[in-house]
Amino acid sequence: MPTPRFITPEITSEINNNFITPVYVYSEKELRERAREFMTFPSAFGHKVRYAMKANPNKTILKIFESEGLYIDASSDFEALRALAAGIDAHKIQISSQELGNNIVSLIGGGVFFVATSLHQLEYFGKNFPQQSCGIRVNPGVSSGGFAKISTGGPSSSFGIWHEYIDEIKTIASKYNITICKLHFHIGSENTPSSWVDSAELGFDIIREIQSVTTFDMGGGHKMAIMPHEKSADLQAIGKAVQKKFEDFYTESGRKIELEMEPGKYLTINSCSMVTKIQDIVNTGTSGYKFLKINSGMNDMPRVAMYGVQEPLFIINDTSEYEEYVVVGHCCESSDILTPKLYDAEILEPRKLKKAFIGDTLVIDGVGAYNSGMAIKNYNSFPESGELLLRENGEIVEIRKREQVEEIWRNEIDVF
Amino acid sequence: MPTPRFITPEITSEINNNFITPVYVYSEKELRERAREFMTFPSAFGHKVRYAMKANPNKTILKIFESEGLYIDASSDFEALRALAAGIDAHKIQISSQELGNNIVSLIGGGVFFVATSLHQLEYFGKNFPQQSCGIRVNPGVSSGGFAKISTGGPSSSFGIWHEYIDEIKTIASKYNITICKLHFHIGSENTPSSWVDSAELGFDIIREIQSVTTFDMGGGHKMAIMPHEKSADLQAIGKAVQKKFEDFYTESGRKIELEMEPGKYLTINSCSMVTKIQDIVNTGTSGYKFLKINSGMNDMPRVAMYGVQEPLFIINDTSEYEEYVVVGHCCESSDILTPKLYDAEILEPRKLKKAFIGDTLVIDGVGAYNSGMAIKNYNSFPESGELLLRENGEIVEIRKREQVEEIWRNEIDVF
Repeated sequence: MPTPRFITPEITSEINNNFITPVYVYSEKELRERAREFMTFPSAFGHKVRYAMKANPNKTILKIFESEGLYIDASSDFEALRALAAGIDAHKIQISSQELGNNIVSLIGGGVFFVATSLHQLEYFGKNFPQQSCGIRVNPGVSSGGFAKISTGGPSSSFGIWHEYIDEIKTIASKYNITICKLHFHIGSENTPSSWVDSAELGFDIIREIQSVTTFDMGGGHKMAIMPHEKSADLQAIGKAVQKKFEDFYTESGRKIELEMEPGKYLTINSCSMVTKIQDIVNTGTSGYKFLKINSGMNDMPRVAMYGVQEPLFIINDTSEYEEYVVVGHCCESSDILTPKLYDAEILEPRKLKKAFIGDTLVIDGVGAYNSGMAIKNYNSFPESGELLLRENGEIVEIRKREQVEEIWRNEIDVF
Repeated sequence: MPTPRFITPEITSEINNNFITPVYVYSEKELRERAREFMTFPSAFGHKVRYAMKANPNKTILKIFESEGLYIDASSDFEALRALAAGIDAHKIQISSQELGNNIVSLIGGGVFFVATSLHQLEYFGKNFPQQSCGIRVNPGVSSGGFAKISTGGPSSSFGIWHEYIDEIKTIASKYNITICKLHFHIGSENTPSSWVDSAELGFDIIREIQSVTTFDMGGGHKMAIMPHEKSADLQAIGKAVQKKFEDFYTESGRKIELEMEPGKYLTINSCSMVTKIQDIVNTGTSGYKFLKINSGMNDMPRVAMYGVQEPLFIINDTSEYEEYVVVGHCCESSDILTPKLYDAEILEPRKLKKAFIGDTLVIDGVGAYNSGMAIKNYNSFPESGELLLRENGEIVEIRKREQVEEIWRNEIDVF
């Protein structure tokens, strides 16, 4: 009988007794273990791990990762401000953003590292910071996407400078006398050892042309299994395959290139479970479906409705009977379902779960990435849910208060 | 040469000079005109229009509609609290929610009308409010969805009491001596006159069985065209077709049934345009795409990424040249595009637009429903954008302040 990853019946009781559900619960142990896996990633000439904080930007998570030796990748100037506010040192933060936000100049001035993701951004950096160093993000022309919506390389992607524009990069660098010390790639999610090797080869083709590069940031996208049928990336296997490419390049060129990586989902997705309550059970007749309605939904957990991902679901009770259920969220929106066909949120796929009763707790595992930080927040005016941390000593502490409903409209202005 | 619905070049200048973009701009004129269209909807024995506030819950919009004579439908107890906080009278508010929120009893006690959307909810109402009146939402067993993700009737939908359970409804009503005075249907979006007539017939089959019903709430979903190739619902044609059914039922039964409707998108979608700035232009080579990157995206306007809808886009400049562009948002997310293939957000469909330059304003029409209120708020830590109202006298006033970035993490708690 499968059980939740770390939410035991005792923890369920403690949460139901002391906190308001729905609530996100993070495991400090899981966060630290995943970070340590990355810290021991094989590398030829050293490596740095940058947490892609867009996956989950809560300050406690940033601080835990910092204490494990991780650096930060910010996908907007606002994320960089957020990391600074959390107490992360500026020199540990890198910005690689689609947008040249208004705070970029002051952030770089304060020590944040800048990766130009377009020729325009590179020119902007050169104008404002001549003779200084930055990175460039390049679109290598290929992608490696697990599902179509998530692919960040190739001609359909606007991310990074197209790989044919190396001459333009050199011209701008020379014009402002800036040093391009880092190449940044990100070819998408769910990739395999061979796709990392391919990516490394494409990267070294560019590094060969840009002599000033000393660091190769290969991005993130390392697969982490959530459902039983999924398989996580083998970090050691990927690392060793890639390490060989860095060594080969050294043999060829005499240049020792440092490796960087930007995991997000891998580090956080299994660190969080949502504790919810079954608040209604309905059906659509003998040839229809049985629905469990929970007190949470796409406003807390958007990945199912947006991408049709599947997450492990557990009814917490003492029953030994099972039933097939469709689980739905509490939003007045047809797409607010939690048991879709894989990668097709429009099709219901009933899940075999313990026989459920109104009032039972339902735990959803694998919601630590792109849920709290990517929530369809306040849809139907539901307040943002609270966040808890299960400490390594077993203590449960609040890391984000549940929003009060009045906060939702705090910035509205009376006109009438 | 097509131009934005109401954002003139003068308004563009005024906004760029006085406010921070991206910003939502609402037209009071458009809001009032759409409300008046519904107030003159044909009906046999009177009708009431309830604004489905989940489409856009800003208090100014609620107040404008109230001043035009509209009532409110709230899809959660929190929405009802929000409407009350906006100054709407309790007796004008109805709750029909997937979830029995903690505030339901006090709201009903305060005069809010309750529609039970499940047998459990009906039982709960009976226990707490014996001998009082409520409505029931019934799933008639058929749907009318414009695109697959939005369909709210039929066996795949968890919304409402399955139509085969009329006896169970009667049993609960009798047990608590409650009066079911309203039947509530909602069969989905994008429907036609004939689908409304079908819906009316299904409804009267139930009203025939439940003698206490005096009001038939037929829900919303009236199509409003956003793109040039789309066609809006003909409210007068729908109204007249439906009116006949109400008259027939009166002839048959002697019962005069009042009509209610719950438009949301129809009332608001064209009332709002997003004023954004083109902050970068990139391309992926001669056989690739030209991308315009704006300073807004799925965090402000989620409907494109979520449902693949198309919205009208306008570059504001004096050029007479045109180009084909893919327009993308500023989020570090592949699905953050604004020019998808219709109903397939995974496929890019370049749009012919005025030749654009970095710094130009780009206006997106048709974003007044399920955008601000359904935003993927704070993704990549972008603050919630401000909202402006273009008054009928031409004045532009702020109705929601832009969020300060520090507000995003205001509820986080220091643990380390």
